[in-house]
Amino acid sequence: MNLKHEMRVLGVDDSPLVARDVLVVGALFRGAEWLDGVMRTYLTRDGLDATERIAEMMCSSKHHTQMRAVLLDGITYGGFNVVDIHALYDSTSVPVIAVMRDFPDLESMHRALQHVSEPEHRYSLILKAGGFTKVITRDETRPLYIQTAGIEPEDGAHIVRRTTLHANIPEPLRVAHMISSAMVLGESSGKA
Amino acid sequence: MNLKHEMRVLGVDDSPLVARDVLVVGALFRGAEWLDGVMRTYLTRDGLDATERIAEMMCSSKHHTQMRAVLLDGITYGGFNVVDIHALYDSTSVPVIAVMRDFPDLESMHRALQHVSEPEHRYSLILKAGGFTKVITRDETRPLYIQTAGIEPEDGAHIVRRTTLHANIPEPLRVAHMISSAMVLGESSGKA
Repeated sequence: MNLKHEMRVLGVDDSPLVARDVLVVGALFRGAEWLDGVMRTYLTRDGLDATERIAEMMCSSKHHTQMRAVLLDGITYGGFNVVDIHALYDSTSVPVIAVMRDFPDLESMHRALQHVSEPEHRYSLILKAGGFTKVITRDETRPLYIQTAGIEPEDGAHIVRRTTLHANIPEPLRVAHMISSAMVLGESSGKA
Repeated sequence: MNLKHEMRVLGVDDSPLVARDVLVVGALFRGAEWLDGVMRTYLTRDGLDATERIAEMMCSSKHHTQMRAVLLDGITYGGFNVVDIHALYDSTSVPVIAVMRDFPDLESMHRALQHVSEPEHRYSLILKAGGFTKVITRDETRPLYIQTAGIEPEDGAHIVRRTTLHANIPEPLRVAHMISSAMVLGESSGKA
């Protein structure tokens, strides 16, 4: 591993919903193996501030200019707080790759959104995020699906594969999840 | 890297002192490269509960029985809350290795303890922790010093070297420090 030339990729995940303010953690990796930095922010459960809060966290980081991409765990955070991945790219200049473990069921998402404010606005952000690209990482039977902003899907898929090591999700997302769940629950919960 | 056969080592670090309750984070590694779990607890700034709180965190972890050793960042946490490393070993059955970046100045530690309650009791725990063993990791000019409980100093030194990768401190401590400082400050502060 040549650390100097490894690309920096940020993984961002939220934590279990226990309060109105939801902890969100960013884990910045060099390549797939070296954790270079950790950051956190809070956003509102079922709110409309996910894009803004995550953009603020990224832009105020000392690592901001080095970030090659940001990996999101899907595009809804803190319940139904939907990230506008194109606006996130526009405000951070960092390419965005939203990673999903299952092909999203848009119809049931649309139904679920009816329980919170501005369902059609939220749904429009999900649709606006664009088509889904299938990515095979380590296990052919468990593909991932990505939506991207500011980067071609093939390049996004390449970054996802490059940062995926022993688990079935990229290391930055795996570690961001461990940290955020441990802070709220006392110990990290699994996700692999 | 053969993950299955890599030993599990926990690194425990505290966070910057911003409140009476001080966040303490445990980062559990398999070998030097794979973060296997994260846990947290709180202890009292300048209190006397460090040993008990860290023991509780370790014993309530699902990884407890697999822990081959715990690495501490020195033996004072949350200000002057001194860990009794022998008591920590007795209550967890996990060998304890306290790691220091500088050879401790016991006299000035003794003086500093006069500002908190029970200074002689705290100082006795520092002395009871035992002699210091010098450990050369990656950089000959920056040796580490360890105190151990439940493990011979040479075996402790071996674990410190095995878990030290690119930085001058073991990965479990480096990562625990990044997480704890990020949670309190918003972004991790360096230590390498």
